[in-house]
Amino acid sequence: MMTEKPIRAVLFDVFGTVVDYRESIIREGHKWNKQKGVTIDWPSLADDWRGACQPTIDRMLNGEKEWKPFDALHREELNRLSSRYDLSCFSEDELRVLNDVWQRLEPWGDSVTGLERLKSQFIIAPLSNGNVSLLTHMAKHAGLPWDLILSPEFIKSYKPDPAVFQMAYHYLGLDPDEIVMAAAHPSDLQAAAEQGMKTAYICRPLEHGMNQITETVTPEDDCDYMARDIVDLANQLIDS
Amino acid sequence: MMTEKPIRAVLFDVFGTVVDYRESIIREGHKWNKQKGVTIDWPSLADDWRGACQPTIDRMLNGEKEWKPFDALHREELNRLSSRYDLSCFSEDELRVLNDVWQRLEPWGDSVTGLERLKSQFIIAPLSNGNVSLLTHMAKHAGLPWDLILSPEFIKSYKPDPAVFQMAYHYLGLDPDEIVMAAAHPSDLQAAAEQGMKTAYICRPLEHGMNQITETVTPEDDCDYMARDIVDLANQLIDS
Repeated sequence: MMTEKPIRAVLFDVFGTVVDYRESIIREGHKWNKQKGVTIDWPSLADDWRGACQPTIDRMLNGEKEWKPFDALHREELNRLSSRYDLSCFSEDELRVLNDVWQRLEPWGDSVTGLERLKSQFIIAPLSNGNVSLLTHMAKHAGLPWDLILSPEFIKSYKPDPAVFQMAYHYLGLDPDEIVMAAAHPSDLQAAAEQGMKTAYICRPLEHGMNQITETVTPEDDCDYMARDIVDLANQLIDS
Repeated sequence: MMTEKPIRAVLFDVFGTVVDYRESIIREGHKWNKQKGVTIDWPSLADDWRGACQPTIDRMLNGEKEWKPFDALHREELNRLSSRYDLSCFSEDELRVLNDVWQRLEPWGDSVTGLERLKSQFIIAPLSNGNVSLLTHMAKHAGLPWDLILSPEFIKSYKPDPAVFQMAYHYLGLDPDEIVMAAAHPSDLQAAAEQGMKTAYICRPLEHGMNQITETVTPEDDCDYMARDIVDLANQLIDS
């Protein structure tokens, strides 16, 4: 009988899994509306802004577009949304502040407690498409107690490039099956599983708002752990 | 009059500056002596082991030797010391455990308190020659509350290569003069200053033991901050 290797590290997708980007953007957006006396549709802008990223990442991964860090990508997409949402009332300095909202995202209610529990026993790190400074500032703002930041910026790539997952276990000096990848998105989990990592699905039914019709995990997805939230994941991993 | 930019990040040399490698190795070594009934001279071994690293790094930096991560370098130097210190009583598994002592180094008494204070206001990270997994495990063991790990492993180089310091401010998204490099070694401070970083000398009179005759900082070295220890540095930076 094979004995299972103990888990040594838990890596996290961040946007949607650890932080609630949609509500955070809407909340800051409403302040801008009040301050400027405008009526920008922030829920829709947040969805479009986030939604534009993955297709652009795909174009970078297949070589159609030169790699750039995630905060520059956010800025590029924001510029593209400028006319649709009439952002002309924003000065250049204000657009910079607005773009940095990604550094000020709020964690889900369970995230900090869950990460702190996991940190007591495992190495914890983001494995997010965010660049290093974005993830660092976000962690300071949200109180995310990472042991280290792992970012595809180190190899100028993006998830789901297999090299990103390989980079993670290489730098950690661990075998892939000593690592759990935790995410609210089956695509991350599938890519991690293909590299031999264990997988944990974190349920985030409100990531896309109240009317969410989103990717769901079915038993066929065959996750190693299914968790209601990060505290639940900590309970499962620390008991196991 | 130029207004000074506020400090955003404080980076640390680690071996000697944050952790007391010499005493940590001696302490573990004495346990090995007892366990194995041998009389290995651990103070001398610790000095030789540490002392062998920089010349080998220099050979890697000038292209005479292929780059390898710091823990592999430690292991190579340990093998070289094996006959001088009669380490033949160690099995292969025991040598691996012994080499991992660098992951179990103890912090100086002020390090954790000082780093926690600095973390409340600044980004804090090691900028050490240690590889990522070595620095990560050390931080877990010693309770060093880094915001992120910065390692020359990301660019397969070593300090004092200027590219290592450039990498740090690039990934942090900061200008060099928004960063303080803190070290007990003038060589680190000089290399950081050449890249435009601010510098803080941390006094570690016992790094090399009781009879230390070591590099000292004179007023000509022109550090921005001179600190008795990391708590003193925190007091100076947080007051400033």
